[in-house]
Amino acid sequence: MPAALLTVNLGAIVANWRALDALSAKTVETGAVIKADAYGLGVAPVGRALQKAGAKTFFVALAAEGATLRQAIGPAARIFVFSGYMRGDEAAYRDFNLTPLLNNADQVTRFLADRQGAACGLQLDTGMNRLGMEAAELASIIAQIPALNPVLIMSHLACADEPEHPQNAAQLTAFKDLTATLPDIPRSLSATGGILLRADYHMNLTRPGIGLYGGDPFIGAQPVVTLSLPVIQTRPVSVGESVGYGATWIATRPSVIATVAGGYADGLIRAMGPNASLYARDVACPIVGRVSMDLITVDVTDLARVQAALDILNATQTVDSLAQAAGTIGYEILTSLGNRYERVYKD
Amino acid sequence: MPAALLTVNLGAIVANWRALDALSAKTVETGAVIKADAYGLGVAPVGRALQKAGAKTFFVALAAEGATLRQAIGPAARIFVFSGYMRGDEAAYRDFNLTPLLNNADQVTRFLADRQGAACGLQLDTGMNRLGMEAAELASIIAQIPALNPVLIMSHLACADEPEHPQNAAQLTAFKDLTATLPDIPRSLSATGGILLRADYHMNLTRPGIGLYGGDPFIGAQPVVTLSLPVIQTRPVSVGESVGYGATWIATRPSVIATVAGGYADGLIRAMGPNASLYARDVACPIVGRVSMDLITVDVTDLARVQAALDILNATQTVDSLAQAAGTIGYEILTSLGNRYERVYKD
Repeated sequence: MPAALLTVNLGAIVANWRALDALSAKTVETGAVIKADAYGLGVAPVGRALQKAGAKTFFVALAAEGATLRQAIGPAARIFVFSGYMRGDEAAYRDFNLTPLLNNADQVTRFLADRQGAACGLQLDTGMNRLGMEAAELASIIAQIPALNPVLIMSHLACADEPEHPQNAAQLTAFKDLTATLPDIPRSLSATGGILLRADYHMNLTRPGIGLYGGDPFIGAQPVVTLSLPVIQTRPVSVGESVGYGATWIATRPSVIATVAGGYADGLIRAMGPNASLYARDVACPIVGRVSMDLITVDVTDLARVQAALDILNATQTVDSLAQAAGTIGYEILTSLGNRYERVYKD
Repeated sequence: MPAALLTVNLGAIVANWRALDALSAKTVETGAVIKADAYGLGVAPVGRALQKAGAKTFFVALAAEGATLRQAIGPAARIFVFSGYMRGDEAAYRDFNLTPLLNNADQVTRFLADRQGAACGLQLDTGMNRLGMEAAELASIIAQIPALNPVLIMSHLACADEPEHPQNAAQLTAFKDLTATLPDIPRSLSATGGILLRADYHMNLTRPGIGLYGGDPFIGAQPVVTLSLPVIQTRPVSVGESVGYGATWIATRPSVIATVAGGYADGLIRAMGPNASLYARDVACPIVGRVSMDLITVDVTDLARVQAALDILNATQTVDSLAQAAGTIGYEILTSLGNRYERVYKD
């Protein structure tokens, strides 16, 4: 059936992973963050491609995501789970050999009671105040660290996308201070933004996410996705006629309007409406009127011929430029990509 | 595994369908629009519940959706497809007994060549300039109408959410004019908004969508969804400390912050961040800082005790109030609801 077509370039993801890996020293391991279904692009194909390229350590948000990933990539890789050892996750951790990043004393206590001897990591909060233990909570479990024998100690930067933000250095200092008395366990502080900061942020293991998928702040990333929406019909529209819900767009010249299959139910964020275009190769065709649930109307007046499909994501209109049109960030464009697309993976 | 929990009240959907049905005369059939996976709530359970309640006519956007629905509800119901007889859809129409709403002369010609004698409908454009034939295109296929023998003639209102908008009456007149010389075939013009206008908009068949799912403009709708996000951890935050990406929120009193599992990758639109709350029963706990991909941080300082989960959709914060916080409409809140939720259906 002629669905909208989402093409995911696995080769570009692998190239981005290698490029990010090359930004840290050879002694620094480069993992991969493939939570949220690999930022909407498919955890199984992305996980397999990165494992084949040499990635040995993956990060997901939830134990359920880890279970899916484990079934896709087999037993060899380490799979860390950011949300840690949540109640009800016990069976998933055991059955799928997942490694929790323990966030608080309760998770530590329960993990030791259930699974002492199994691998775990510790997540520390160094100023983002979101996930992980702070100094007092870490002190409360310090006596349990030999029994935990963690394989990783990590934290997360809140402002790494803004290299000049003073919180970066403050979090680096806080991380060093918090971990100064801990045993010689591998450390990790940086996702994509941190990799781009400086070598002192790299520690033993980096965890690129958005950069793998072609998004800011990794400016050198290869674009990963193209998204093409089929044209259902075209029509002439006279001067003064309106298009779409609320009659918000009114033709000021004799126009030709194409209606394409794709809308906000496919993650094409409604707010982008007046600011984005679709593309016929590299010719921009502005969206006119409101984005509807399943349909978008596009001004194709200036095309000599209307093709069977128009692109909304391509090398010209990237996830970041579409995000700008929608008032958000490339991450949200990616994770919103819908279920109704036909997905094709290129090596 | 302890995922966020989305509860869909099928009984409320059925009650809303009956209430909307009661707004038109007994002679008017009431269909149901369950495109976009029943507005994100699950086309199979919603389709089955409405069929059991008496709905005989369903509408979807794409042939692929029709195929899924047919497999869920069996052979009896009529399934109309708004996008019509698109190239590549031929097998789906045949194999799943779907009824296209033909949008243009090309679809008419191809449908007659492939499937003469099978049921079809005609979609007319009466001023929205999105889908359907206008006068000239209708005239070009008028000789084929006896061979088509359509079972429905329909159009769609662009401004039905604004009862006073002059385009409503203009579209009603245009629809009557366009269809005046056509045979005595059932007519349909109104979705939820049109049902609420006046009886002359009801024609032979109405097509409620958003009203079934508890959204504006059907003010009398019963709420259909509740969404509950598990708390991963809570932490004290001192005056002057910041929370979340970009350090955009800074505590002005000694605070307790809860981090819950759920974020924009779950369709909790990033833009809602500063304007929405989570709920502990009916106590509002404001979102603080930016919504992240998998996590939301919430000010729970005023709670005597933090429960294991907090609600982001409930009877107090409906899809429409959450939409207002995110600068969008309830429809987009519903269709964005994510894949990582555990879904429970109540009768």
